[in-house]
Amino acid sequence: MTGVWLENGIVALRHDLPYPSAAEGEAVIKILCAGICSTDHSLIAGMMSYVGVLGHEFVGLVEEGPKELLNKRVVGEIVAACRQCATCKQGRTSHCPYRTVLGITNRNGVFAEYITLPVKNLYLLPDSIPTEIATFTEPLAAAVQILKQVEIEYDNKVLVVGSGKLAQLIARVLLLKGCNLHCTGRNPRTLAIFPKNAKACHVDDMYANDFDVVVECTGNAAGFDVARRALRPRGTLVLKSTYPGTFAVDLTRLVVDEITVVGSRCGPFSSAIELLALGNIDLDILIDQRFQLNQAMNALRMSQNPGILKVLLDMQ
Amino acid sequence: MTGVWLENGIVALRHDLPYPSAAEGEAVIKILCAGICSTDHSLIAGMMSYVGVLGHEFVGLVEEGPKELLNKRVVGEIVAACRQCATCKQGRTSHCPYRTVLGITNRNGVFAEYITLPVKNLYLLPDSIPTEIATFTEPLAAAVQILKQVEIEYDNKVLVVGSGKLAQLIARVLLLKGCNLHCTGRNPRTLAIFPKNAKACHVDDMYANDFDVVVECTGNAAGFDVARRALRPRGTLVLKSTYPGTFAVDLTRLVVDEITVVGSRCGPFSSAIELLALGNIDLDILIDQRFQLNQAMNALRMSQNPGILKVLLDMQ
Repeated sequence: MTGVWLENGIVALRHDLPYPSAAEGEAVIKILCAGICSTDHSLIAGMMSYVGVLGHEFVGLVEEGPKELLNKRVVGEIVAACRQCATCKQGRTSHCPYRTVLGITNRNGVFAEYITLPVKNLYLLPDSIPTEIATFTEPLAAAVQILKQVEIEYDNKVLVVGSGKLAQLIARVLLLKGCNLHCTGRNPRTLAIFPKNAKACHVDDMYANDFDVVVECTGNAAGFDVARRALRPRGTLVLKSTYPGTFAVDLTRLVVDEITVVGSRCGPFSSAIELLALGNIDLDILIDQRFQLNQAMNALRMSQNPGILKVLLDMQ
Repeated sequence: MTGVWLENGIVALRHDLPYPSAAEGEAVIKILCAGICSTDHSLIAGMMSYVGVLGHEFVGLVEEGPKELLNKRVVGEIVAACRQCATCKQGRTSHCPYRTVLGITNRNGVFAEYITLPVKNLYLLPDSIPTEIATFTEPLAAAVQILKQVEIEYDNKVLVVGSGKLAQLIARVLLLKGCNLHCTGRNPRTLAIFPKNAKACHVDDMYANDFDVVVECTGNAAGFDVARRALRPRGTLVLKSTYPGTFAVDLTRLVVDEITVVGSRCGPFSSAIELLALGNIDLDILIDQRFQLNQAMNALRMSQNPGILKVLLDMQ
């Protein structure tokens, strides 16, 4: 089959990949639509060593699996846990030390015609959610995860640092809490795409240091610094992006100002699907372009341009 | 009067210091007993620039102030806030940007015959608490602060990294929650002083990585690394010490493992006094030696030796 293969830092469209076959408890899923995420580019850049098909944001059609799922549209949680170890038994399956992760760790991803995933990872999609919009389920769940980890009140002053794909989703989710939301970044195009009730400004114009909660979505040291400085004492800094390598952090300031730093990763698919079904989050505006799978290399190139938001591989 | 003066990194016992006079709303307090803290040594080492009398842990006798406090023993919160600014009005007086801090920032400290402090900072001591024991109020409050910031359950597995003065207090406070407490450090003498129901081991023998909560009390990069590695996914890392300078931190691990980092500083004096009045925490064992104020330079020297816990300046 056709798929986007990463090996030794080289990414290529291949037509010679074997069709996957389902292990016990797994389903075979035909990909209908896939989204390109910054993590895909981080993997290409070598942030973690990974060999296999890239991609983890998808909507698919179940071709092999339990009767009730056959020929139904599904989305799927990207972490496949062992469900046997102590971590899994304590309910933290997404942190299973033996996990595979779709398109990220030891499990071929969704920039291909077919994948397999454990049936337990799959969620049926309501008919009301268009396939392209449902492709946002995984990053939207990651945005919703913030609300599961941090109490956000209607009178909180909240800042999102970064204006990319994930920042846009996070801003839309945070606005559901009615908070006083500010957003900051560097790209005029994406800053303009934040919802009207989010106060967006260029990072050079960001002077306030009284935010209750700041969500860092840039994944770089400069963004971390902006986020850190914007917080009030006893504020909460949510880290939503991974960072290339390590960098120097002034931990003493965290202690003196009694800052709480919350690392935040994958989130609850069920909540994200409910949100999509409600239809009150505008996601169409975040889709910049669609490509066929055969055009995947062009799609990857385009998606890493500054100011470009979601690029989809549409295989319907 | 006599006092321990720090200026340009030089610390000296001086006999020519002026007796302090109380500003509006302040009391004049004769020091009965003062404790030496690692922060005093950090100030001498130049971690922050400070000119003035050192010391912030004390019990004193009110010599000038409101009638109900005169000739009474008191302890005092070390942060003097402006009580006018936005931060103060939001109830975060200990983070007032215009604060002075006893023996740390723009306010002469307690290694002297007399100090002044705002009356609002003072707490009457119950007669039942001996003066030397009450000198632990400030660091004990800092230990109690952890319980105000982090939920600790009886079935949590908790690790204290470090075996010094603050680590010892923190271990004793955490044990009140009945948790499964482990402690680790490098010094055999102080490791042996942890309470029996805390499982203490040398840091080289610390392999577990399944702690729910880890409290870092070493204030150095190696301690931070030990603490970080000991945490389970979604665990909580409490930072209880300040660090000299910055150092490289792998923030990606915090995100991937969804770690929460909690900076923790001063705590509630009222809770600490209640604890001391209950008398069920053994603090005598933490007092290594007493010196007269005239011997303060010897006291400072002794207190920085490895394995030495609390050194007091007893002026009764």
